[in-house]
Amino acid sequence: MTERLALGVDFGGTNLRVALVSAKGDTVSVVSKRSFVTKRNARPAAFVEAVASASESLLKERGLARSRVKGVGLGVPGSVDPSRGVVYVLPNVPGWNNVRLKRFVERRLRLSATVDNDANAMAWGEFKFGAARGAESAVFVTLGTGVGGGLVLGKKLFRGRDFSAAEIGHVRYRTGGRRCACGAIGCIETELGRGQLIAKLREDIKRGRAKGMESFLEKHGGLRLEAVTDAAARGNAYAKRFWAETGRTLGDFLAGICNLLNPESVVVGGGVAQAGPFLFGPLRAALRKNAFPRAARVRVSPARFGQDAGLIGAASLVLERP
Amino acid sequence: MTERLALGVDFGGTNLRVALVSAKGDTVSVVSKRSFVTKRNARPAAFVEAVASASESLLKERGLARSRVKGVGLGVPGSVDPSRGVVYVLPNVPGWNNVRLKRFVERRLRLSATVDNDANAMAWGEFKFGAARGAESAVFVTLGTGVGGGLVLGKKLFRGRDFSAAEIGHVRYRTGGRRCACGAIGCIETELGRGQLIAKLREDIKRGRAKGMESFLEKHGGLRLEAVTDAAARGNAYAKRFWAETGRTLGDFLAGICNLLNPESVVVGGGVAQAGPFLFGPLRAALRKNAFPRAARVRVSPARFGQDAGLIGAASLVLERP
Repeated sequence: MTERLALGVDFGGTNLRVALVSAKGDTVSVVSKRSFVTKRNARPAAFVEAVASASESLLKERGLARSRVKGVGLGVPGSVDPSRGVVYVLPNVPGWNNVRLKRFVERRLRLSATVDNDANAMAWGEFKFGAARGAESAVFVTLGTGVGGGLVLGKKLFRGRDFSAAEIGHVRYRTGGRRCACGAIGCIETELGRGQLIAKLREDIKRGRAKGMESFLEKHGGLRLEAVTDAAARGNAYAKRFWAETGRTLGDFLAGICNLLNPESVVVGGGVAQAGPFLFGPLRAALRKNAFPRAARVRVSPARFGQDAGLIGAASLVLERP
Repeated sequence: MTERLALGVDFGGTNLRVALVSAKGDTVSVVSKRSFVTKRNARPAAFVEAVASASESLLKERGLARSRVKGVGLGVPGSVDPSRGVVYVLPNVPGWNNVRLKRFVERRLRLSATVDNDANAMAWGEFKFGAARGAESAVFVTLGTGVGGGLVLGKKLFRGRDFSAAEIGHVRYRTGGRRCACGAIGCIETELGRGQLIAKLREDIKRGRAKGMESFLEKHGGLRLEAVTDAAARGNAYAKRFWAETGRTLGDFLAGICNLLNPESVVVGGGVAQAGPFLFGPLRAALRKNAFPRAARVRVSPARFGQDAGLIGAASLVLERP
């Protein structure tokens, strides 16, 4: 089967990563990758230079001519017009206002470039090559610092009128909740964002509700959600309950989304999805209980590409046109 | 311009109505209609007989041959497979389980028939001929006994995987709320369904929070939402506040939906939409305040066809294939 190659760029909050990605038929893999500290490469000019040097080095390493690569896909954490390749704004990265990133990258790299929102890119990668392959419609949720999303409807990336659809973290979940960074009250991100989950963990420890967790976390690198998953795997009752509650909240929320969109597939990615069955069991139960019978038939899966979802997603924008 | 004719059937909770509908270009009107009491014609066989006799009488009245009519569209309050014309179930009407309504109607009427969910039909009518004409994507909400919905995405009726999308009334709005008829907690229908709005009105009167309303309602036919609109129009402060709060709740809710779908147009129909500016002003303000700037650009309009939305919607399924 013909091997297709593309470069993928994942502009994360901590790291800026660039990978050479290979696809054969509908399987995909990361050939090799480079990583930079985002903070030092966050301005558009420095960003493009980092991408260019990584791309050249990745190609050189494999002895590949530029013409062997279909192009470079870039997933960025913010608002984008993918038809023109313009980044309107990245809420958490200063200096990005109406940046013509596609043109900028194409001139510097002499490769065709595609730019999209990072969660859209991940959704497209999981749809074309991963957990939602073959689905007619799918809802993607990424649980990280914030709660991001992507929608594939009728086998196409659904972007809405102004390319700003799929902000699933900013669908209201409750009244009387915390104020979200977006300014509204009670967005699901205020319940399931990493900061909120960590705050809950800290509070439960402080109030003596998390038996055995304090000493466990001390031994395993502090207040991290990954450590809560490890504790659950070792049978800690609180840790299991922590993920069960998180799963139920996500399932209750997704029940409403499934009533609205009746998708074939729901894919949950991001760091939190690493909690595996501790999260997904209660999530599925809550969704089945609260959605209409037809909507509840949806398949719920963890994202397939884990840490590489951003890179594979970005490359997939080039490998398979959305 | 050529006149196209179709029959539309609106299977409402109180009345079963049948209309002859005329379209010229993109304008549409009801030529004439017949109405039956639903209770006496609710079983499938009686329903089809009522539709048949009304259709014959409507055609005869205008001296029209059957061949002049493109077909008959039927909007029913429940779950439908429109591709086969099968009604799976109508939650509030007994006797409808897996009824092959399309075949049944086509045999009896000797006209081509199209069957869909009533809210989908209304959405399609408003999209093709009404408030959302020309939009790329639109979200429809009907506020009646329950809260119904329809989605037009990419100029097509979006039905989801099992034809059960657009159940917008059953998207979660709050935690710790009332249990909904669907079994879940805190669906937006539990806030904005007619029963809940009437209960709130009754409670406010009882607690002396609704100055002037008790005597007003006594003079104007009792506890009806239409009377609250009349009272607001005459300047009653409570009545204005009642609609402002309802509008804010709907706007807060729709902000999340617009963050998710970024539609070009939102159309609000059903009896409650008659409250006009008392409802729509606060609704728009809450939506603008809580949605992301791009999502907040959405156009929010009352449905155009009011009481005839169901009839025109059903006929539009035949006049313009969804």
